[in-house]
Amino acid sequence: VAEDVWVPIDRLRRFGAGLLTALGVPEEDAALVVETLIEADLRGVESHGLAHLVEFYVRRIQAGHLNPRPAMRVVREGPAFAVLDADRGFGFVAAHRAIDLAMEKAEGAGVAFVVVQRSTHYGAGFHYALKAARRGFVGLSVTTGGNIVVPPGGRRRAYGSNVIAAAAPTGKGWEFVLDGATSVVAGGKYEIARRRGTRVDPAWGITEDGEPFDDPELFFAGRGAILPLGGRPETGAYKGFGYGILADVLSGVLSATGASALLPRTGAAAHCLAAVHIESFLPKEEFLRQMDAFIDRLKETDRLPGVAEITIPGEPEARLERERRARGEVPLHPSILEGFRAAAEELGVPYDLP
Amino acid sequence: VAEDVWVPIDRLRRFGAGLLTALGVPEEDAALVVETLIEADLRGVESHGLAHLVEFYVRRIQAGHLNPRPAMRVVREGPAFAVLDADRGFGFVAAHRAIDLAMEKAEGAGVAFVVVQRSTHYGAGFHYALKAARRGFVGLSVTTGGNIVVPPGGRRRAYGSNVIAAAAPTGKGWEFVLDGATSVVAGGKYEIARRRGTRVDPAWGITEDGEPFDDPELFFAGRGAILPLGGRPETGAYKGFGYGILADVLSGVLSATGASALLPRTGAAAHCLAAVHIESFLPKEEFLRQMDAFIDRLKETDRLPGVAEITIPGEPEARLERERRARGEVPLHPSILEGFRAAAEELGVPYDLP
Repeated sequence: VAEDVWVPIDRLRRFGAGLLTALGVPEEDAALVVETLIEADLRGVESHGLAHLVEFYVRRIQAGHLNPRPAMRVVREGPAFAVLDADRGFGFVAAHRAIDLAMEKAEGAGVAFVVVQRSTHYGAGFHYALKAARRGFVGLSVTTGGNIVVPPGGRRRAYGSNVIAAAAPTGKGWEFVLDGATSVVAGGKYEIARRRGTRVDPAWGITEDGEPFDDPELFFAGRGAILPLGGRPETGAYKGFGYGILADVLSGVLSATGASALLPRTGAAAHCLAAVHIESFLPKEEFLRQMDAFIDRLKETDRLPGVAEITIPGEPEARLERERRARGEVPLHPSILEGFRAAAEELGVPYDLP
Repeated sequence: VAEDVWVPIDRLRRFGAGLLTALGVPEEDAALVVETLIEADLRGVESHGLAHLVEFYVRRIQAGHLNPRPAMRVVREGPAFAVLDADRGFGFVAAHRAIDLAMEKAEGAGVAFVVVQRSTHYGAGFHYALKAARRGFVGLSVTTGGNIVVPPGGRRRAYGSNVIAAAAPTGKGWEFVLDGATSVVAGGKYEIARRRGTRVDPAWGITEDGEPFDDPELFFAGRGAILPLGGRPETGAYKGFGYGILADVLSGVLSATGASALLPRTGAAAHCLAAVHIESFLPKEEFLRQMDAFIDRLKETDRLPGVAEITIPGEPEARLERERRARGEVPLHPSILEGFRAAAEELGVPYDLP
């Protein structure tokens, strides 16, 4: 089994932006996309980081599914909402614009939702919610995902691994971050297992016969589907299914783009970015005080044997990010670097990574 | 095992309102509380219906934890938000006011959040979201719950069975309704098992030794805690934990009432009711068309053997409600009626139920 290689972040920035600009992406957009992918790897979200750069983005620009030079514009707006048309451009770029606009509007109105229509894959959901939390808002980030989830009672993929992400500031030096697909896991977890030659947890999904499976190749053969969060109906599958539909309502439907289940298999997506202006509701210090008291209480919970600490979603990721930023490097699987090298040759971009 | 008794709705309305007004609750509020509880039983949400009338509400008024004649008022507001102080009155009454205000504000701004501070148990979360959906909004309903959930890695109860509920209109004659605690199940599911003398699913919770358990009495002895939605960390427990914290952020923290984990064990609660004005984003007919196309696609999913139909959250509940409204009766366990009879005697209220 090949070990991860530590790669300098500054070189990844230059290399990634080089690949994208070679395909006609404006420099500013290319930098934003690559910086966002790096943020995923910095925080250990390996399922949504640079591993996707070539397969999800370079290839989709080449196939004509992703518009490298879109004319994004706000097509509808009011005091606490807007609809942004992404013109099939990078979901990353559209979602950054959308959360920025949501924060601006929320500052005046208290809360704002910006939905993004005709967009594409925006990476991990957390980026945009975390951006808002770092600026003193509660952030929400919702998107349609690829159609790899099976509804309760079904035996085939039918709807998206839709995401509901959220973040809020704390006084602890890190932000609370809920990130994740409304399915048991995201499809990226199968990609990781394939890269690493490992098995997957059989409770993540079912085959077309309704059986659990631990071979990731069954997933890539289209013969396995991921279960909604909750797993079985008896343990909350209808809740996970409901969260998935809610995500579609707020992104695919409200943006008039179409729910996940009806989107073409080209990376087409729709999002909803929302910001809650904390100071409208209560003084910021009081919010932080209440968050910290809550976190302290959770951390005092008696632990199971072998558990060193109760961790809050967002806390371990922030620790990793701090360590990796200090080191100036992120770990990448050699197969990802091989993909980079091949794409660089193909596009005539200099390759100076390990 | 005792069988459920079918009880006429109109008699339940009269009887329930009689109990509450005998305790000083204004007639209009008493009628609203009872109607909301009946709606839960009509839709088969037995965990949050009339079964709670005496233990949760009558007893808490008597104990001084629930203010029967509160002075509720909006203490802060803007174009897309408000903070409503419930003055420790009925959560039902406060949440109805809050969703009404959220709809009013969302009509002007596109979206609105109304948080409710210093409130009490508001029953099932779905009522207020469904109310909004029936009026052409996407509705969200979030609340702190009782502290019966264990964080991942913990072995004791630490935070609330917080609820995130949502609803949206469809063109199908019923509404999409996501309802439920952010834990595997709500505490009410253990109450149902106790009443019916059945075992519970061992995957719902753990004992203080970290073991699964199927005896509901362990839960009532305080020796069992419910797991976050997702169950184990490997199958998404950190997502369920994250949803639970998000619910606390939007209700307990944003309202300055305190997160679930820090609230006293008296039924104290905080909520967040939100409305999204669909027509601000797209024509209502287009929204319904997209919802129906999505639902049709989900229902076409190939099914597991023995599964007659893929059902959407909110669909079976609407069917039950239609049947039970037509019949004019809801089924109640005899032990609930016994509790009613005892409370009626105690409060000098006439008892004319079966």
